[in-house]
Amino acid sequence: MDRVYIEDLHQHVGSEVRISGWVYHLRSSGKIKFAVLRDGTGLVQCVITESDSPQAFEVFGQLTQETSCVVGGVVREDKRATGGHEILARSIEVIQSPESYPISPKEHGVGFLMENRHLWLRSSKQNAIMRIRAEVERACRDFLDERGFVAVDSPILTPSASEETSTLFELDYFGSKAYLSQSGQLYNEAACMALGRVYCFGPSFRAEKSKTRRHLTEFWMLEPEIAFGDLDTVFELSEGMVTAIIERVLERRGKELEILERDTSKLEKVQAPFEKITYREAVRILKEKGFAIEFGDDLGGDEETALSLAFEGPVFVHRYPAEARAFYMQPDPEDGSVVMCTDLLAPEGVGEIIGGSERISDRDLLEQRIEKYGLPKDAFRWYLDLRTYGSVPHAGFGLGIERTVGWICGVRHIRETIPFPRMIHRVYP
Amino acid sequence: MDRVYIEDLHQHVGSEVRISGWVYHLRSSGKIKFAVLRDGTGLVQCVITESDSPQAFEVFGQLTQETSCVVGGVVREDKRATGGHEILARSIEVIQSPESYPISPKEHGVGFLMENRHLWLRSSKQNAIMRIRAEVERACRDFLDERGFVAVDSPILTPSASEETSTLFELDYFGSKAYLSQSGQLYNEAACMALGRVYCFGPSFRAEKSKTRRHLTEFWMLEPEIAFGDLDTVFELSEGMVTAIIERVLERRGKELEILERDTSKLEKVQAPFEKITYREAVRILKEKGFAIEFGDDLGGDEETALSLAFEGPVFVHRYPAEARAFYMQPDPEDGSVVMCTDLLAPEGVGEIIGGSERISDRDLLEQRIEKYGLPKDAFRWYLDLRTYGSVPHAGFGLGIERTVGWICGVRHIRETIPFPRMIHRVYP
Repeated sequence: MDRVYIEDLHQHVGSEVRISGWVYHLRSSGKIKFAVLRDGTGLVQCVITESDSPQAFEVFGQLTQETSCVVGGVVREDKRATGGHEILARSIEVIQSPESYPISPKEHGVGFLMENRHLWLRSSKQNAIMRIRAEVERACRDFLDERGFVAVDSPILTPSASEETSTLFELDYFGSKAYLSQSGQLYNEAACMALGRVYCFGPSFRAEKSKTRRHLTEFWMLEPEIAFGDLDTVFELSEGMVTAIIERVLERRGKELEILERDTSKLEKVQAPFEKITYREAVRILKEKGFAIEFGDDLGGDEETALSLAFEGPVFVHRYPAEARAFYMQPDPEDGSVVMCTDLLAPEGVGEIIGGSERISDRDLLEQRIEKYGLPKDAFRWYLDLRTYGSVPHAGFGLGIERTVGWICGVRHIRETIPFPRMIHRVYP
Repeated sequence: MDRVYIEDLHQHVGSEVRISGWVYHLRSSGKIKFAVLRDGTGLVQCVITESDSPQAFEVFGQLTQETSCVVGGVVREDKRATGGHEILARSIEVIQSPESYPISPKEHGVGFLMENRHLWLRSSKQNAIMRIRAEVERACRDFLDERGFVAVDSPILTPSASEETSTLFELDYFGSKAYLSQSGQLYNEAACMALGRVYCFGPSFRAEKSKTRRHLTEFWMLEPEIAFGDLDTVFELSEGMVTAIIERVLERRGKELEILERDTSKLEKVQAPFEKITYREAVRILKEKGFAIEFGDDLGGDEETALSLAFEGPVFVHRYPAEARAFYMQPDPEDGSVVMCTDLLAPEGVGEIIGGSERISDRDLLEQRIEKYGLPKDAFRWYLDLRTYGSVPHAGFGLGIERTVGWICGVRHIRETIPFPRMIHRVYP
């Protein structure tokens, strides 16, 4: 009698199998008992009658929510059942039966659920989000691998900051100071000059005190970087990647989107090319909507939401004022007050999921910018070297995994899109 | 005239193309000039004559090692040439020409090369290692994804340590203490009880002062965890994964292995099942070899090397003494002095690349172990919960990416197997 995962039950109709899992739900209807099991791959209802199995019928009384057990029985097709199959139980072996389980179907506060994140992940919705997250990551990699990009892991411990120096986590590194990486971009720049087209995927850290639905102190970013690339490369590649992600999730994670009650018609409409507007146009639109914004201001969360809602699909906002942006961005040759960068805003009010730019390739200009931004020049020696030894135009972007997953899942707060969220007041569990 | 990557030249024989890259090597032979270009995907020789292109012939004088440039010309098949093709240059556009380049073909000390890691990555051997690393990572993921595992990203910022508390990097987290993760395992345990079969892949940190060829302070681990799994699951899965990695690299990265002058016959011999010996047997073998080792001692680097050399292929050493191992390991039901764990030693003197075990599923026993190891019980509340609410037997392992890549590449010191190595005296570049 083989152990079978619930997602594979369709291959075993009529056979006796063993399911190893946890009790998700229990009910009785007269002389028939029902135990819905989960094993991480799906749910299945086990039907228990005294005549078919006195052993299972007796053990049923010991079952509680999240009891771990092994159920033996015969697989039967049943279109009405969750997953399309049920099990006629022949035996139940209880492994461990909790007296009570903290998370019940009743409503819980987010604080409580977050404190019990290690258990909350077992619920169908959280399970679905995690599977979609894995699919999104896989889709990004496949997209880039197929196009000749080489995955190059960026370091986390760094001697310098790439941007927003006020939001760095600092640590003692054998007597000297080191910082947790905020982005793999600077290292990607070195790597793309060695390997042509590269990407990194890993955790990034920002010691931000903001408590918005869009911020985590630890988040994951997918960052491609292309030697000889420019802003058009960023537009094309990010557009292609986002549509590939959506297509993949629609194709392979329909069941999970259904569990999340996601309106997929909105995702199906996402088609390249995306709308493109300049920052100046964005400011004009926002002014029309009553925002008090002037050229030079960065776009905040509210502004992004408003712009996102103004378009049906994703929209690129490009050429932001230099002052509002990071030191390494290439000025627009036709307008020195703006830089060759873009943010991609996801629709439905989601806001920024991608930020990218051309990087400065001229050494003197880069050096001036490092000084102007008050950055420690010594820590950037190696970064300046990239402009001394065979400098080339290059560009890249970063896609925030949690924001992208939040958009696709229709989950408003990104704390549910990462297995163990880290926020200003949360580093547990 | 399309921009073409060197690895794709075979698709453009007879056509005029544009190569964007860097000068790797220059030479003259009478009236013919040769510039070998690299673009991150390969090397190609460009042939420059005054009659074919006076412009290119003149510009040749400006070229130096690592000059960035765009060469236009016609692709010609030439079996003798590197990569099987050459370019008859029609034009050369210089982008930036360095006066000198620090890394020349002459021998450099490792300290110098490490200080210039951002440039050293451009050399053929380092480029080959990075491509093999990416292939190894990809092979691991494909292997697990195909088997129904869900990728679940473990957090890096944690309130507690999983093992070796003396080697933790500590940081200030908004006024409280947090630590950089040494392993995603504990979180994987929570995740596998939600999703069945999971893995994480990310950076791990150990503030180890050791300066051996096997240690980095920041390294990447691939860690699968399986609910209802046991030591046999670890044997089978790790064996399958390692053979899948080797096969994949042999199949897709032959060119890179050749650049590294790797003796692939040794890799071709790696076949499952791998040899398995108990720790007790390992101690006996080591004693025979003259090592002063007694039951209870952990195996150090020298012992691992000796064992590794004693077998032709990879060898599992299993059932180590409980005292020498982490708190969470399940005791052997048949011998309480040892635990249900295993290390996989790679051959050719490489040593440990994998460590895995069954985890304790009994709450009382786990609690005793946490106390015995002097670990902060409060930080492990959630981890104990996994044994309170539907505890199940489970097992998993961690594969060290750098050690695996080092073995496959035949690179002795793992500092060359990660893009930007972090060691006790190195956090730059």
